[in-house]
Amino acid sequence: MLKKSPLAPKNIGKIKQIKGIDLYVYSAGLYNKKRLDLALFLFKNKTSVAEVFTKSSLRSCTLDWNEKNLKNKEIEALIVNSGNANTFTGQAGINALTKISNFVSNKFKVSVKKVFFASTGVIGEKFPEKKILNTLKKDKSKTNNWLQAAQSIMTTDTFPKAISVKTMIENKTITITGIAKGSGMIEPNMATMLGFIFIDCLIPQNILQKLLKDLVDKSFNQITVDGDESTNDTVIMTSTNSVSFKNKISSIKDRRISKIKNSLLPVVKYLAEQIVRDGEGATKLINIKVESAKNSPQAKRIAKAVANSPLVKTAFYGNDPNWGRIVMAIGKTYEKIDPKKLKIYIGKQTVVANGAEYKKLNLQKLKKYMASKEIDLKLDLGQGNYSYETQTCDFSHKYVDINAAYRT
Amino acid sequence: MLKKSPLAPKNIGKIKQIKGIDLYVYSAGLYNKKRLDLALFLFKNKTSVAEVFTKSSLRSCTLDWNEKNLKNKEIEALIVNSGNANTFTGQAGINALTKISNFVSNKFKVSVKKVFFASTGVIGEKFPEKKILNTLKKDKSKTNNWLQAAQSIMTTDTFPKAISVKTMIENKTITITGIAKGSGMIEPNMATMLGFIFIDCLIPQNILQKLLKDLVDKSFNQITVDGDESTNDTVIMTSTNSVSFKNKISSIKDRRISKIKNSLLPVVKYLAEQIVRDGEGATKLINIKVESAKNSPQAKRIAKAVANSPLVKTAFYGNDPNWGRIVMAIGKTYEKIDPKKLKIYIGKQTVVANGAEYKKLNLQKLKKYMASKEIDLKLDLGQGNYSYETQTCDFSHKYVDINAAYRT
Repeated sequence: MLKKSPLAPKNIGKIKQIKGIDLYVYSAGLYNKKRLDLALFLFKNKTSVAEVFTKSSLRSCTLDWNEKNLKNKEIEALIVNSGNANTFTGQAGINALTKISNFVSNKFKVSVKKVFFASTGVIGEKFPEKKILNTLKKDKSKTNNWLQAAQSIMTTDTFPKAISVKTMIENKTITITGIAKGSGMIEPNMATMLGFIFIDCLIPQNILQKLLKDLVDKSFNQITVDGDESTNDTVIMTSTNSVSFKNKISSIKDRRISKIKNSLLPVVKYLAEQIVRDGEGATKLINIKVESAKNSPQAKRIAKAVANSPLVKTAFYGNDPNWGRIVMAIGKTYEKIDPKKLKIYIGKQTVVANGAEYKKLNLQKLKKYMASKEIDLKLDLGQGNYSYETQTCDFSHKYVDINAAYRT
Repeated sequence: MLKKSPLAPKNIGKIKQIKGIDLYVYSAGLYNKKRLDLALFLFKNKTSVAEVFTKSSLRSCTLDWNEKNLKNKEIEALIVNSGNANTFTGQAGINALTKISNFVSNKFKVSVKKVFFASTGVIGEKFPEKKILNTLKKDKSKTNNWLQAAQSIMTTDTFPKAISVKTMIENKTITITGIAKGSGMIEPNMATMLGFIFIDCLIPQNILQKLLKDLVDKSFNQITVDGDESTNDTVIMTSTNSVSFKNKISSIKDRRISKIKNSLLPVVKYLAEQIVRDGEGATKLINIKVESAKNSPQAKRIAKAVANSPLVKTAFYGNDPNWGRIVMAIGKTYEKIDPKKLKIYIGKQTVVANGAEYKKLNLQKLKKYMASKEIDLKLDLGQGNYSYETQTCDFSHKYVDINAAYRT
């Protein structure tokens, strides 16, 4: 068991169950040590589903499965396991999905076409379908404790990531619960990350899908741990018809949608930040903002290059304000920058200005700040009006520990 | 002092001095501990010079200086220091080059327009021009020991990189000596690497430049340590008029050029491999070959993605044949690959075939091979006829050690 990240939140608030969803969590023995490793969500009334996928060209067969079922716009069951990614498992991996979904369909009276999967863990190892089937045959695992769902999907995560929020619409309480897991392969289109967001009022699928795309761009797509993008990244959002309105939502311009979106955005941003805070071996959260870029792609390219540079990340780990490495990372994008206009700020301190180290830089003060658990880095390119923000973590001995011994 | 890389060569052969070049090496106090850190090469007869530069958009002012002087096609002095990159040092950094070149010009009677610089070390710190000037005033440092030149340019290198070869042309012995340094920020267009190649017969500058470009593409541009590209990467090649032919070389198609090129290629390939062998914290040399790609960019993109993936590199460090991470790294390029056609070989063993782990894989044998100091990884994409080779090293605790504490 990995020691909890020093960047973990002190408390996780109460995680609310979502009306209309039954949650089952299991220990299916997918790890050597007994732990929660399998979750089943059953959606008891009409539930819309939206999903975004990794861009990896060698993705898990679970995502092919879901993409097909997504056309049916509704979800009745979601099965999530950790310990095995069901990726590059050949026809056997695909067959396992058929068998498991058939079993769940028979047992819980759901349509196979409305069964979704998500898997995370080792790529290429035989998918443990028998362990999963034997476990699902048990009936005793229904729970109201939704934090356990977040626990069951952890891999090298050191703490569960979950949040619930409420909002009032037409005098009715709408509840949103989100869970996610990281914590390596975190870049640039999501991560080895799974994210699940559950809402208890019905939103039509086409609107839900657009909402999700936009939310993911503003959260999970902005973070990076190591620049490695997973074969299994996915975020699924469901909206259950438990709280109903007099007039149904039928347009993305509906004011209720903007209210719901306002509640969803902090949920996905929170979960994304937790993934960075639990980045493998992380000792520091680094908030990077690129400002005054010529255009958006330039801002993004530079922010990501700095965020993913092993040399920048190890310097942050070592509390070393070695801003030369930031300059290096900007330069390696080949983006033309006027050195005289570039300004680099670490925390509130100006570090680089006028093409050199800032003359009034207080190095002692800066070094002290570098030892903080949370660092703000701002790069002002002095070119135009575009900006981009990303969050990352530092690169420590423990990242190597974890990943050199992942399977041993 | 860092412990010598376990991948260092057992012996470095005799490094030959090149006729027509005087070498001076100094301890200028550019490091806290006394060591060689400054080298001056004086070219006593007409010498052609070629140079290739980092593509970084924020490069060292030494490279701007050299690019200007390269127009004059000849070199009379080359000054190389370690300990400070003279990058992002503002006008002061540029002024230092003027002062130092003026001094060298006066003392050694060379043209300022034929003085070249190369620097490597920390970016952004004040350039130590006084230490360098005071040191150059000494006269006692002339040496025939060219290995010392390789020693003086080391930064986090754990061993000097140097090689000499000979070839016979028209019954005359042509000598080539090359030196280089690594060993972080090694990607994709050279590295924090400096390379210097000296030849003792005259080749016209335009031919020398074309030769160098081609040689670098086949050696230094193919290696990667951490995906970080330096602000200071450069390779300089000089050809001195010490051995003369009856008929001068005037065409790149001259058969003497192909003979010289045949001798140069192993020199640059050797130096490039030594840089990988001395990659920061390296414990394994990994030779990656991508075959049967649809086109060259695809082959290169996939080779580099695998070579630079922190998760792949840490798995190799941990002797873990976790081929799923190789699949992940291929997938994150978004290159479309048919999983059923993809074959992965580690050493002589087939690891992946027919869209899954190879059925006859002998895992025990593979694990044993994974513990070797040199690993061959071959990816057959099953698409077309293009291939690409790259060399990299693994990612160890020591990389983090070195880079978290580089300046402390």
